[in-house]
Amino acid sequence: METILIVGAGLSSTSLIDYLLEHASENQWQVRLADMSLELAQSKIKQNANGFAFNFDVSDKEERAREVDKADLVISMLPPPMHPMLARECVKQSKPFLSPSYVSPEMQVLDKKAKERGVLLLNELGVDPGIDHMSAMKIIDEIKAKGGELLSFRSYCGGILAPSCSTNIWQYKFTWNPRNVVTAGQGVATYKEKGQYKYLPYQQVFAHPLKTIMPGYGDFEVYPNRDSLSYRSLYHIEEIPSILRGTMRRPGFCQAWNAFVSLGCTDESYVMRDSENLTYKEYIESFLPYDERSVEVRFADCIAVSPDDPIMEKFRWLDLFSDKKVGVKEGTPALILQKILEEKWTLDPDDKDLLVMQHQFVYQLNGQQKKITSSMSYEGKDQNHTAMAYTVGLPLAIAAKLILQSKISLAGVQIPVSSQIYEPVLKELKELGVYFTETVEDCR
Amino acid sequence: METILIVGAGLSSTSLIDYLLEHASENQWQVRLADMSLELAQSKIKQNANGFAFNFDVSDKEERAREVDKADLVISMLPPPMHPMLARECVKQSKPFLSPSYVSPEMQVLDKKAKERGVLLLNELGVDPGIDHMSAMKIIDEIKAKGGELLSFRSYCGGILAPSCSTNIWQYKFTWNPRNVVTAGQGVATYKEKGQYKYLPYQQVFAHPLKTIMPGYGDFEVYPNRDSLSYRSLYHIEEIPSILRGTMRRPGFCQAWNAFVSLGCTDESYVMRDSENLTYKEYIESFLPYDERSVEVRFADCIAVSPDDPIMEKFRWLDLFSDKKVGVKEGTPALILQKILEEKWTLDPDDKDLLVMQHQFVYQLNGQQKKITSSMSYEGKDQNHTAMAYTVGLPLAIAAKLILQSKISLAGVQIPVSSQIYEPVLKELKELGVYFTETVEDCR
Repeated sequence: METILIVGAGLSSTSLIDYLLEHASENQWQVRLADMSLELAQSKIKQNANGFAFNFDVSDKEERAREVDKADLVISMLPPPMHPMLARECVKQSKPFLSPSYVSPEMQVLDKKAKERGVLLLNELGVDPGIDHMSAMKIIDEIKAKGGELLSFRSYCGGILAPSCSTNIWQYKFTWNPRNVVTAGQGVATYKEKGQYKYLPYQQVFAHPLKTIMPGYGDFEVYPNRDSLSYRSLYHIEEIPSILRGTMRRPGFCQAWNAFVSLGCTDESYVMRDSENLTYKEYIESFLPYDERSVEVRFADCIAVSPDDPIMEKFRWLDLFSDKKVGVKEGTPALILQKILEEKWTLDPDDKDLLVMQHQFVYQLNGQQKKITSSMSYEGKDQNHTAMAYTVGLPLAIAAKLILQSKISLAGVQIPVSSQIYEPVLKELKELGVYFTETVEDCR
Repeated sequence: METILIVGAGLSSTSLIDYLLEHASENQWQVRLADMSLELAQSKIKQNANGFAFNFDVSDKEERAREVDKADLVISMLPPPMHPMLARECVKQSKPFLSPSYVSPEMQVLDKKAKERGVLLLNELGVDPGIDHMSAMKIIDEIKAKGGELLSFRSYCGGILAPSCSTNIWQYKFTWNPRNVVTAGQGVATYKEKGQYKYLPYQQVFAHPLKTIMPGYGDFEVYPNRDSLSYRSLYHIEEIPSILRGTMRRPGFCQAWNAFVSLGCTDESYVMRDSENLTYKEYIESFLPYDERSVEVRFADCIAVSPDDPIMEKFRWLDLFSDKKVGVKEGTPALILQKILEEKWTLDPDDKDLLVMQHQFVYQLNGQQKKITSSMSYEGKDQNHTAMAYTVGLPLAIAAKLILQSKISLAGVQIPVSSQIYEPVLKELKELGVYFTETVEDCR
């Protein structure tokens, strides 16, 4: 009997828990699910004989040590800043640790000791980061293996609404953390194109979306992520002349979102005076130079469109020019915008999400340039089994199985870029319906 | 014999020193001029019998104490962060202290002790801040005295080129600190208009300039300063429905400058890779999404003008699309832009600067609305006697005289908003050629 400790029973843990419970008997696993809320944990275990739900406070040092001691493997689904606390205990007790989150500096410092003790701390093993790493590395390694020279790598990912429920004019709702959506793109987006470093400031990030097509899902647009360049060293492609990572949205989203960016509605750096009593219209008025014309006309003017441009319908649909009350105390512009959007962009009970991912590789081999396009899409089943939860949870679950089966021989702080992880994980993901389709075309 | 200590002999001290030396004999003053550079200090004293130039390190505690002890009044022309060091010593020794800089939090904390000891620390006594405070308060007090209700206050100031030398296509050169010009407007510009708070983000600050006319100098445009609202309490006009402070530029400047802002060329937050070897064209290319068209065409596209729009001539004139080398190591976008601009915007030996200031007041009295426009302009004489140095130095010099004549009975940290300062200072400024002309018109 082997014991798996999962810490955190929130939405993104559902598919992870389901998979482990489903495969518990055959593998002789005991799944211990820890959460601040016993009720939430119990609802996910559903009286499965191989599962045990319990109340847990990760900040309690003794409790933490005791639970790690009972486990053979630990999966942290905690908020990112809380991972290192648990990972440190795992290093101490030589237990493998898994998380879907980016490697933080606090996590990275554990690398040396973990390697000394032969403990694996495997991070970035969800969907993005996670499936993106694995699926990209598989093709990069294949291109290298046949002697190809990589000229360009673009990698896009997006969490949006499934087409069957994308009926609103934005074709968008919050399928993940709303705050992250509202503040996405702040700072400078750095990437590289034809050997030239690019630096797009926030006010340009949404202004020039790239275009792409997803098999079965049609047209998308893509805005560049803040950091594309660090992926060069992660993927061992330091010399690549063009690299860009981006976020996928439905056509028209970026131009409309850019209106909020250019007006300053996504600013988190200050609190608006008397924000609680502002109406939506007064909120927008706050960002517009005064003249005698209506708020709506000046808004259109400020974003350089005509008041009867179709894009304006998106803003009217949000009631942006109405006398509705904001009702947010001490609100920053971003917080108030989030509140306004949540009124319209919150998922209905029968809404389903869609996860899309696409990599584009251009490489040269024997004097010939080829382009590989590798695309994955997955639709959620319902509110508990979202595409996001499924694609975050399964890589963790599969890797947990592989580790307990001693099929992974790594130690230290790792991300899933080596073939001993990505080969078996991608193989099983495919069986579970999460797979990439590839097209190859000649360039020029 | 009374001793005036001036610390700092840079460009902005010239007119201050000249005035004090000129009036030294009649007032029985000894003017001690301290600077890190003895040579610079000597060049300003010019062997005047009432002046004494010496080498001085303000960070040397003992030297500081000794020099303040010798003085009856201290004028600090140091960089702003260094004022408090000197002011603290002045409080300790009960010597009046003057500076042209904004009251910093470190200065403000000296208020209590200065008041207890009856010492005056008079700050913001240059041109902006300085003459703006005095000239605005004079009219505000007059309106209040006759029972008028102030509805709107706008106050603009600008340092530009005199028309006789404004022959370049930008009608602009650096007449003051270039870095401050390049980074002007960053953050959020807050002001109030018709009772509504306004928050213009940096990317909007230059996009909607106001327009005004200066007697004798024609059309100007104005962009809002970062902070207009704090002037409500400084000027005791807390309830005013409209208040805006702004910076004056020649027509067309703001639209062109906004191109740099929107592309991210004024960003100081990161260093550009291999900046030293970039050409001007590559520098601009860094901010532009890639496609097959020329940098110039894409630049025009990004700022939403046609490549043959007249505004493009301004950028071509700066050689922005040329293969000139940037040559700045570890350069931020802002630093590189400053370097590019300095190639073209550095004053020639016979260039003269122009200082313009305008206040607009709308008030209601006996059911009638009136607008007062009060304008001041002053042209520099030569590179040593710039308008900036003249208008910064004279208020300090005049106030120093008044204090030594015991005509000012204030203590603590002060700015020149009370009539016992502004009345005599404005009166003498007028005799020295720095004066406002007023027009009054009925509104509606």
